[in-house]
Amino acid sequence: MRIVDGVRSCQVTRIEDGRVTTVSDAVAAEAPLEVRLNGEPFSVIMRTPGADRDLVAGFLFTEGAVSDRSHIAAMDPVADGAFDVTLSAAHTVLLPDLLGGRRQVTMNSSCGMCGRRSLDALHLETLPGATAVEWTISPEAILAMPAALRLAQDAFSATGGLHAAGLFSRDGHLDASAEDVGRHNAVDKLIGRMWLEERLPLRDHVLFVSGRLSFEIVQKALLARIPIVAAVSAPSSMAVDFGDDNGLTLVGFVRQPRFNVYSHPERIST
Amino acid sequence: MRIVDGVRSCQVTRIEDGRVTTVSDAVAAEAPLEVRLNGEPFSVIMRTPGADRDLVAGFLFTEGAVSDRSHIAAMDPVADGAFDVTLSAAHTVLLPDLLGGRRQVTMNSSCGMCGRRSLDALHLETLPGATAVEWTISPEAILAMPAALRLAQDAFSATGGLHAAGLFSRDGHLDASAEDVGRHNAVDKLIGRMWLEERLPLRDHVLFVSGRLSFEIVQKALLARIPIVAAVSAPSSMAVDFGDDNGLTLVGFVRQPRFNVYSHPERIST
Repeated sequence: MRIVDGVRSCQVTRIEDGRVTTVSDAVAAEAPLEVRLNGEPFSVIMRTPGADRDLVAGFLFTEGAVSDRSHIAAMDPVADGAFDVTLSAAHTVLLPDLLGGRRQVTMNSSCGMCGRRSLDALHLETLPGATAVEWTISPEAILAMPAALRLAQDAFSATGGLHAAGLFSRDGHLDASAEDVGRHNAVDKLIGRMWLEERLPLRDHVLFVSGRLSFEIVQKALLARIPIVAAVSAPSSMAVDFGDDNGLTLVGFVRQPRFNVYSHPERIST
Repeated sequence: MRIVDGVRSCQVTRIEDGRVTTVSDAVAAEAPLEVRLNGEPFSVIMRTPGADRDLVAGFLFTEGAVSDRSHIAAMDPVADGAFDVTLSAAHTVLLPDLLGGRRQVTMNSSCGMCGRRSLDALHLETLPGATAVEWTISPEAILAMPAALRLAQDAFSATGGLHAAGLFSRDGHLDASAEDVGRHNAVDKLIGRMWLEERLPLRDHVLFVSGRLSFEIVQKALLARIPIVAAVSAPSSMAVDFGDDNGLTLVGFVRQPRFNVYSHPERIST
């Protein structure tokens, strides 16, 4: 589980043409970084470790918190997962406004993590056992999901610019789908529809997404009690850890004739 | 410019093998939605219009603002770009906590838009003329960017799970690159490094990103005064509008032997 240059190695279960093998794989590292101004919590960024100094500088600049290089007196990693920026004496007079302005805003879009001001506020919900194994699904049903979702993707077909999310039943039937420029939004549209129809918990369903699996998407699935989350592309390291800890089956790189299982492979019948 | 089912039609300049044509294309629609609780601004979501009711319900549920269907008494679009949720009388006692909690949090990651609580707070920065045309770039230089960036993408090659951003000079040379699980973070790492090195404004550079072009990425480019933004995939409708209004050249679907220009094609030498 070493992290080198933004990548973490891990063991995955590869299923291909009915054969099950364990292979060493690499996932993109994802971890929260708390940004502090003069020691005060300012924001939390979900990022790939590495170039933290560049990231913090670019974040503060593009957010308008600083505009001139002289506004920053020092930048230092202060503890595991935190980064302190010391403003110049002249710029520190603006600190109350900067922090106060933060308190006036909220998180952006449908993201279970975003909007938190400090690491303590992340409140990672862990519900071990909430998704206890009760059923399995066949590799064939998983492999058929990308094509089924694509068929339902009217807007994506037209633009190539939308994320899609689909909710599949245990037998591989596509129950519902949604599209959005934001991957979290597509998942929220799906879960929201089911919630409005009072169909939660979704213990008998698989969530399938067109892109990558971030931590936030897996967290949303857990809230809806969806036990299997699959994707065309890769999961992040934090998604894998979260799935592992909470009994969720995470499937990635679903591309005929194979896919990878990153956590709890016992739900795939082989 | 009609929006139908999450898609907006537009005219783009297509450049292929040196030939320039104008074709009708479709881009994914992106627009802000202000969510209000009992009339009070709660959050702004950047989303693709359509299924707004599902999105708002899923957003409030996965954020923990509501947990039972009975918590919502009514849900109504109230004005252009806003959606009001009326909480039940029993749940309304929690409203001060819900709104107060929002004020304690900040935006998530490196996103120029996120974290705003109301549409009025979006403060779209428009700087017409800030990126006045002063130079052009050849189609060949644009078409060579994906391969050059991929060569620099160590972590992506290993995981397939990272976004990449590259800063190219006028002659098509890759000056710097960055990777991250978050597309906004990759751009912030790049701009942050340049800002720390006091190399802004970047008027002689092209920003190239591995994925899609959201409004936020184009806004960040403008802040750094980068006049050309190009991507392997599609821009959103709001990115196109923003580029159009602010004198930025937006290039999408850069895939040999062609690409599309969505705004200000005069910077491409043909």
